[in-house]
Amino acid sequence: MTHQIQINQARLISELQTLATFTHAEPVSNGTSVTRIVFSADDLRARAWLKELAAAEGFEVHDDAVGNIFIRWPGTEPELPAVATGSHTDAIPHAGMYDGTVGVLGGLEAMRALKRGGLQPRRSIELVMFTSEEPTRFGIGCLGSRLISGTLDPSRADAMQDKDEATLATVRATAGFSGSLASVQLPSNHYHAWLELHIEQGPLLEREGIPLGLVTSIAAPAGYRFTITGFGGHAGALLMPDRKDALCAAAELILSVEKHAHATGAIDTVATIGTCDVHPGAVNSVPSRVVLQLDIRDTDPARRESVMQALRRDCEELRLRRKVTITEELVNADAPAQSSPHIVELLEQTCADQKIPYKKMVSRAYHDSLFMARIAPIAMIFIPCRNGVSHRPDEYATPSDTTLGVEVLASALAKLASE
Amino acid sequence: MTHQIQINQARLISELQTLATFTHAEPVSNGTSVTRIVFSADDLRARAWLKELAAAEGFEVHDDAVGNIFIRWPGTEPELPAVATGSHTDAIPHAGMYDGTVGVLGGLEAMRALKRGGLQPRRSIELVMFTSEEPTRFGIGCLGSRLISGTLDPSRADAMQDKDEATLATVRATAGFSGSLASVQLPSNHYHAWLELHIEQGPLLEREGIPLGLVTSIAAPAGYRFTITGFGGHAGALLMPDRKDALCAAAELILSVEKHAHATGAIDTVATIGTCDVHPGAVNSVPSRVVLQLDIRDTDPARRESVMQALRRDCEELRLRRKVTITEELVNADAPAQSSPHIVELLEQTCADQKIPYKKMVSRAYHDSLFMARIAPIAMIFIPCRNGVSHRPDEYATPSDTTLGVEVLASALAKLASE
Repeated sequence: MTHQIQINQARLISELQTLATFTHAEPVSNGTSVTRIVFSADDLRARAWLKELAAAEGFEVHDDAVGNIFIRWPGTEPELPAVATGSHTDAIPHAGMYDGTVGVLGGLEAMRALKRGGLQPRRSIELVMFTSEEPTRFGIGCLGSRLISGTLDPSRADAMQDKDEATLATVRATAGFSGSLASVQLPSNHYHAWLELHIEQGPLLEREGIPLGLVTSIAAPAGYRFTITGFGGHAGALLMPDRKDALCAAAELILSVEKHAHATGAIDTVATIGTCDVHPGAVNSVPSRVVLQLDIRDTDPARRESVMQALRRDCEELRLRRKVTITEELVNADAPAQSSPHIVELLEQTCADQKIPYKKMVSRAYHDSLFMARIAPIAMIFIPCRNGVSHRPDEYATPSDTTLGVEVLASALAKLASE
Repeated sequence: MTHQIQINQARLISELQTLATFTHAEPVSNGTSVTRIVFSADDLRARAWLKELAAAEGFEVHDDAVGNIFIRWPGTEPELPAVATGSHTDAIPHAGMYDGTVGVLGGLEAMRALKRGGLQPRRSIELVMFTSEEPTRFGIGCLGSRLISGTLDPSRADAMQDKDEATLATVRATAGFSGSLASVQLPSNHYHAWLELHIEQGPLLEREGIPLGLVTSIAAPAGYRFTITGFGGHAGALLMPDRKDALCAAAELILSVEKHAHATGAIDTVATIGTCDVHPGAVNSVPSRVVLQLDIRDTDPARRESVMQALRRDCEELRLRRKVTITEELVNADAPAQSSPHIVELLEQTCADQKIPYKKMVSRAYHDSLFMARIAPIAMIFIPCRNGVSHRPDEYATPSDTTLGVEVLASALAKLASE
C-alpha cells in the first residue's frame, strides 16, 4: 500500500503557513509568532478555513457542543468503529506554528493522499481538531479531549471562567456551540484506534539525528493555582514595616517551586510557574493579591506528590512569617497514559518496511492523546523540532521531517482502517 | 470673608459618588471599587460630566492638547496671574473614590461656595483637572502636570506607549486631543499661587486625631523598569538543568528590592514592585521574559540612590549566576518640592482664625503639586483617610473632614485671589 502514498509537501507547508496567519500576535524577526486563543476571532477563522479545506475534499464535517471538529471519510463498512487521528490548532500567546497544527493539517493531508492513491478504506477514517488543548483561557488543557473521554464533568467545565470571568458556557455559546456538554462524550468502543502526529517539543530526536519518535507513554501532568493574599496600599505611604506584600510572598513561592523540582535529582521532574497575575497591578500600589499557576510533571506520580508536599510546608512557613494567606487549588492531576503495544508495533513495522530510523520514547509534554487513551488504543508519532524549542516563535520542523511523519501516519491509518 | 463660605456638603458627597460610577471595576463588598484609566471610555465620561457641572455654574471651560481641563472664574482683573487649585480624576485599577477626586470636586465646590457667598475675586480663580496623574497606562505619573511645568519633553511624551503599544500621540488624538504637546507648557509667572486638596494616603492625621494637614514638602519619587530575559520553552519538555527561567530571576530581584529598602533602617525609604508582566504568560510555558516596575521613594535622594546601587550589585550577580540578561530603564526620578512659606503661613492663619487643629507634614505620596511647584508657589491641604488606606476600594474620608478641607481651601483661595 505504501507505494500509493504521495504527500503533497508544498501544499502542506503552504497550508501550515496560511494557518499561521490566523493570529493576534505581532510579527517577530526570529520566526512566526502565533497567538490563537480558543474562541477568539482568529481561532474561529482558523476553524472555518479548516472546514472549507475538508469540505473541498468531499469529507463530511461536523462539530460537537464544545467545538471539537470531526472530519470524516466514510469507509466501506461505516458502521465499524473508525480509525482516527488529529490534534489541535489553538496556540498559547507568542507561540510557534507547528505545535498541534502538524497533526491537524498533516492528518488532513494523510487522508487526502490516501484518497488520491485510490484507497477505499474498510473502516471510516476521521480527523479530529480538539478545542482548547492549550490551557491559556480557562486554566485547564485538553478541554475537548477531556470531555470526549469523560474525564471532565460537563457542568464543572461549563462553569469554568476565563480571566474576564466569562464562563465556558457563555463563551462557547457566543462562538456558536450551544448544545449540552454532556453530549460531547464518546463511548469507549467509538474508535478502533487513535494516532496523533506531533512535534517532539524536546531536543532528543534532533540531538540523536533520528527523524521519527514512537511514543510509548505520556508523562503525568498536574496543574495547581496558588492565590496569595496580603495587604495593599499606596506605594509611597504604606511604610515597609507595615507591609504584607503579596508579590514578595509570591516571589518566595516561585523560588520554592524551582528549588524542590531540582531537589528530586530526577531529570523527569519539571515544575514551572508560568503566570503571575498581580492585583491591583499598578506601579504605585503595593500588591494585595497574586495568583500563580503551577505546572508540575513527572513520570513518577509519587515523586510529583513529594514535591507538592515540600511546597506546602514552605507555604505554611510563608503564611506565618509574612502574615499572608495562601490558598492552593488543584486544577488538574492526570494519570500517565500508555500507548497500545499493537499500534506501536504496527508503526515499528511501517518504519522498518520503509527503512526509516526511529526511536521509542516518553512524551514529557502531554497531549489530547493522553485523554483519548481512556477510550481508545492510542499511539503518537513525533518529529524533531529545532533545538527542542516549542511554545516560541522560533519553533521549527523541517519540511522533510514533517512530510516523513505524515507518510508514516498515512501508512498506519490505511493499515488500521483495513483491520 | 470666612462667614460667607457655606459648603454644600450633601451635594459634594453626592457628586463624589456620581463620579465613582464612571468606572470599569466590578462592584466589591468592602467599599467602592474605581478603575478609571486615562482616556478610557469611563475617563472620557467623567471629563464630560465635570465640564457640564462647571458650565452649569457659568465658569469658562477649556482643555489643552494633553486633555488637562481648565475651569476658570474670571476675576475683576483677569490680566493678573490667576490663583489655581485642582487635582486628578483618573484612578488605578481597583482603587477608591477619594484619591484626586476630593481635590477636583472639592475645588469646584470651593469656587461655587465663594460665588454663592458673593465674592468678586480680584484675580481669576482656576480649577485644573490633570490628565493621568496615575502612571497606570504609560508608566509615568503626573503626565499633565509634567507637561504644564515643562518637566517632560513633549516629543518623548508623545512616543510613550501603553501595554498594547499604542503611543500617547495616537491615544490622545483618538480621545479628541490633537494639538502639539509643546503648547501645554505654561510660563512660570502664569499662576500667582497653586493649592491642592487631597486625602493624606497615610495614617498620621487619623492616628493623631487631627483633621487637617498642611504639606511643607513632597518626597522624591523615582520609577524604574527592569526587563529580565531568559530562555523560554515548553513547561513539560524543557528540563530543569537547561532552564534560564526569567520569572525565577525576577523573583530574586523582587526580594532584593524588599531587602534593600528595609536595610536603610529609615522609615522614609519605601520601595515597591507593583507590576510583574510575564512573557509569554501561559501556564505551560517557561517564562522567557519578565518586566518589573519599581517605585522607590525617599525624603533623602542620596539614600534612595544607595538602595539602587545595592540592587544593581544584585542584578549583576543574578546575571552571572542565572545566565539571564537584565536591563534597567529609568522611567522618572524627580526632585522633592518645597511648599511656599507664604501660602503655608496663610493656611496656618486661616486654621488659627477658625480654630481648626492642623499638622504640618511631609507628603510621602507625590502629586501634581510636585510639578506645579516648578512654575508656581504651591501648598497642599491634606484630610485624614481611614486606616491610612488609599489605592483600594475601602479608601474613605468622612464627609465632615472633606467639608472642612474644602472650607479651608475656599478661604485660602479667596485670600490669595485678593492679593
